Amino acid sequence: MRESTSVSDPRPTAHWIVAHPQPSSFNTRLFHDGVEALSRTHDVEITDLHAQGFDPVLAARDLGLPLGRAGNVVDLMAETRAEQQVPDDVLEEQRKLASADLVVLQFPLWWYGPPAILKGWFDRVLTNGFAYGTVDPDTGIPLRYGDGPLAGRRALVIVTAGEDDRSVGSRGVSGDLDSLLFPVTHGTLWYTGIEPLDLHVVHDADGLAAADIDRESDRLVQRLAAIGSESPSRPFRRLRDGDYRGTRALRTDLLPGRTDLDIHRVS
Amino acid sequence: MRESTSVSDPRPTAHWIVAHPQPSSFNTRLFHDGVEALSRTHDVEITDLHAQGFDPVLAARDLGLPLGRAGNVVDLMAETRAEQQVPDDVLEEQRKLASADLVVLQFPLWWYGPPAILKGWFDRVLTNGFAYGTVDPDTGIPLRYGDGPLAGRRALVIVTAGEDDRSVGSRGVSGDLDSLLFPVTHGTLWYTGIEPLDLHVVHDADGLAAADIDRESDRLVQRLAAIGSESPSRPFRRLRDGDYRGTRALRTDLLPGRTDLDIHRVS
Repeated sequence: MRESTSVSDPRPTAHWIVAHPQPSSFNTRLFHDGVEALSRTHDVEITDLHAQGFDPVLAARDLGLPLGRAGNVVDLMAETRAEQQVPDDVLEEQRKLASADLVVLQFPLWWYGPPAILKGWFDRVLTNGFAYGTVDPDTGIPLRYGDGPLAGRRALVIVTAGEDDRSVGSRGVSGDLDSLLFPVTHGTLWYTGIEPLDLHVVHDADGLAAADIDRESDRLVQRLAAIGSESPSRPFRRLRDGDYRGTRALRTDLLPGRTDLDIHRVS
Repeated sequence: MRESTSVSDPRPTAHWIVAHPQPSSFNTRLFHDGVEALSRTHDVEITDLHAQGFDPVLAARDLGLPLGRAGNVVDLMAETRAEQQVPDDVLEEQRKLASADLVVLQFPLWWYGPPAILKGWFDRVLTNGFAYGTVDPDTGIPLRYGDGPLAGRRALVIVTAGEDDRSVGSRGVSGDLDSLLFPVTHGTLWYTGIEPLDLHVVHDADGLAAADIDRESDRLVQRLAAIGSESPSRPFRRLRDGDYRGTRALRTDLLPGRTDLDIHRVS
């Protein structure tokens, strides 16, 4: 699939992370078709979490602390220290992520969030000093929410849901999917500087007939063909733009009175 | 700690699940003090996920499917089948949970959600037929969101956050904690029938001095002393009450126009 490129115009790179336990599933079909399609325009590296046997449990080896050391380890973001010994499997994931212009996260919605194996990839791979913890040299303010160390990258989140677009729609009984996945899109990706594109959602994903599966594959492939020029329709606010000036809460003159997660988007 | 009780008035029971990798942490202090306090009024069973070495990865052994079987495994809720072979570690967790009147989930906020080891406890322990998948015999409508098989239980979610109450407050840059944890409180607990009480949050949990830690321990112990008579200040809507009648979306006459997660609470 790789096309010839000139040295002065390198191909963009992508890192595709997939979390699904079954090699014969619909998700795997999307994964294969998607990686093939994206490879037409990007150099793609992959992380197949189940196939790799990725261990999602952040434990003593990650904290870089001797077992039994007294400590008040509450906040991961404070506690995975830059000087720690980073395990080899984490280093390899960081290498792929750091090399990527585009990050793809693909997973089935389990209990309205990512499977544990992907949550643990966040917990372990996004360490202090690599994915957060840098500081603006002029102001001393931490660089996060759009300006973290991974800024300049974009992310496509592909999620398959068993429910339909009413249940996980804007007034659906299960909650709006943009809100349910806010901890991933805003709290994880955007926190580190990676800009999430609009979600790519497959609804009713359990009940797809063969023709539906082909149609969903085509829809993903078509989106990926133009992914290089895509931008989010409703981007998140950037911390340093001053919308949260001084207080870490949204300025009272912006969308006064509202407290929903949508206030963190630039209207 | 156990007090004498009559046979006709058994002590209530509790299941305390804690997810923290360090035995010397502030979370462990809260865990020990909390379990001791709760034991004054409840028979308490515990799940210390890290100490038990709980495996959070839902894999072929959980799905009860032969490896390599073709299948469209997207939605966990559809795919962990009642007739499956449930692994022994999952059966033991289900026994403790089924026995409990009160469920306590205690964890540090990592990437604005539970650590992977707890997310995987949801993924693996809350199987079809045990935690969901039952149907109203009269209507054929699935029993969920308040009426699931685990109804009659309440849950206390104890979360320690490195950030302050502005950052994870109602207009905070990181999002409102009630919204960030909606996939846990509503999408997981309430889905199965367990009613979550108001969150118990410790802010700034990295920077606590010894006196702060004592104060936070006391605050938790005091809350637990009266937990038997506590109810949520803003409960979630119950699916069968008709608020989502017919469409699985909130009726248009209720809070018209709003799409935030808060619409799913009974005002």
